[in-house]
Amino acid sequence: MAEKLIESVINISEGQRPEVVASLAEIFRAGARLLDYSADYCHNRSVFTLVGDADALLETVFAAVSYAVANIDLRRHQGEHPRIGAVDVIPFIPLGGTRMTDCIDLARRLGERIGRELAIPVYLYQEAATRQERCNLSEVRRGQFEGLAAKMARPAWQPDFGPAEPHPSFGAVAIGARFFLVAYNINLAVNDVDQAKRIAKKIREADGGLAKVKALGFLVDGRAQVSINLTDYRQTGLLEVYRAVEQEAARLGIEIANSELIGLLPQRAILDVAAAALALPGLTKEQILEHWLD
Amino acid sequence: MAEKLIESVINISEGQRPEVVASLAEIFRAGARLLDYSADYCHNRSVFTLVGDADALLETVFAAVSYAVANIDLRRHQGEHPRIGAVDVIPFIPLGGTRMTDCIDLARRLGERIGRELAIPVYLYQEAATRQERCNLSEVRRGQFEGLAAKMARPAWQPDFGPAEPHPSFGAVAIGARFFLVAYNINLAVNDVDQAKRIAKKIREADGGLAKVKALGFLVDGRAQVSINLTDYRQTGLLEVYRAVEQEAARLGIEIANSELIGLLPQRAILDVAAAALALPGLTKEQILEHWLD
Repeated sequence: MAEKLIESVINISEGQRPEVVASLAEIFRAGARLLDYSADYCHNRSVFTLVGDADALLETVFAAVSYAVANIDLRRHQGEHPRIGAVDVIPFIPLGGTRMTDCIDLARRLGERIGRELAIPVYLYQEAATRQERCNLSEVRRGQFEGLAAKMARPAWQPDFGPAEPHPSFGAVAIGARFFLVAYNINLAVNDVDQAKRIAKKIREADGGLAKVKALGFLVDGRAQVSINLTDYRQTGLLEVYRAVEQEAARLGIEIANSELIGLLPQRAILDVAAAALALPGLTKEQILEHWLD
Repeated sequence: MAEKLIESVINISEGQRPEVVASLAEIFRAGARLLDYSADYCHNRSVFTLVGDADALLETVFAAVSYAVANIDLRRHQGEHPRIGAVDVIPFIPLGGTRMTDCIDLARRLGERIGRELAIPVYLYQEAATRQERCNLSEVRRGQFEGLAAKMARPAWQPDFGPAEPHPSFGAVAIGARFFLVAYNINLAVNDVDQAKRIAKKIREADGGLAKVKALGFLVDGRAQVSINLTDYRQTGLLEVYRAVEQEAARLGIEIANSELIGLLPQRAILDVAAAALALPGLTKEQILEHWLD
């Protein structure tokens, strides 16, 4: 990992035509490391996780957006997930020693090029945002593709790059920078979803809980689940959130059954759990044997 | 890590002549990955940690033993640490998907060659042992270099390979196979060494405690320390031993200050801590982002 690596999790409004998804995967594979991808038919949406340095990602993602302009038409797109564009959201996430400013720079370079060469309006969001309203992706996406022309007529929604009107078939794209998101679910040993909702409300930042923690309660396979996003595991780590759920559950007289991670997470997030559980503050990746073998 | 990797932690009876230690390091580096080495003046001993496949280790370690025959004379060796040979102990440790039988095979191949080509008596120990008395390294080393001629006169101490008498200047060498050893210290928030000794006695296997756990109490930098070896972290992991010490300490009305790892440990040992702390039984290295980047 000598290069300055950046991750991108690209959301594309196509999940029903396997040949289009496969072509996009090929484009990503040709220029970066495609770690994972999946397509969801009902959401009519696919998600590609890739890693590379800034220059590689700039070229590869631009190629994918070019392909999407030619092959995805949102005027004929139906699906459950909110979206504003054929390529809907492109976040850049710093890995290893890469800094957030590197990701913001990349978001701007890519946005400028997409606006200029493809005539697609671009909104910079979250850490790359240029206006307060664009810090929150759901604000950027509000009104969706169908409401985009009316939204863009308002001065506050002039795009950061590209034309002042939606691209007729593509719409617009949100490009941003953010920290790594850890998706983590804790299953309770009860089937009462209200208990999960109550615990979620206690621990989430929006209701005065833990910093950088989002949480909702669901019923999954007949079991109450607290579904959690850690938007900055350096501020609130997995063990801290686990212990908070354990404590709130104990107050309700219930127990945790088990927990599960969705997708990948940085090694540092696991080292942080071990460091906290063992009162071993100095634990580093250099103490892991495999670090020296790769 | 497609190759079948083996670790070796080679103990050599030389810690006072830096040029000899440096020459040995060069020999190891030329044929394997030398992860770490250190020399101890008072023990008059050096320890080299290297990793490679079986063939690479066979050649490299044989070269180091050949060098030691020519350059280290135990008849003039003084130091605090018990030893029977110029190269004293050579354990082979399976890493990743490597099996213990691979390490036992390597111990035998190396032992046969050292016995035949260098006329040095070889004792196979621990998992590679051919007699019950040789399962425990300290039995093999009992009597040390100075008592070796008398010991070898007894039928039970005929070597596995090589001549029936000590090599005049080298002595003999113990070659074995064992599982990865994790060295882990827990510091107590008190300066009374008796408390550490009491806790060590409670948790160690020898006194009816946890499986595959060795423990002693020491006073280190004015703080009571429980010094622990986990000889099979798959049977008793770091978190289990931490919680056992925490519980015994609580009975004595004292607290843990912090803990520390000595040397390297396999990633799996850390994943096990996180899995136990988070009730996340399925945690694998494939969920770690960096796994896909190397």
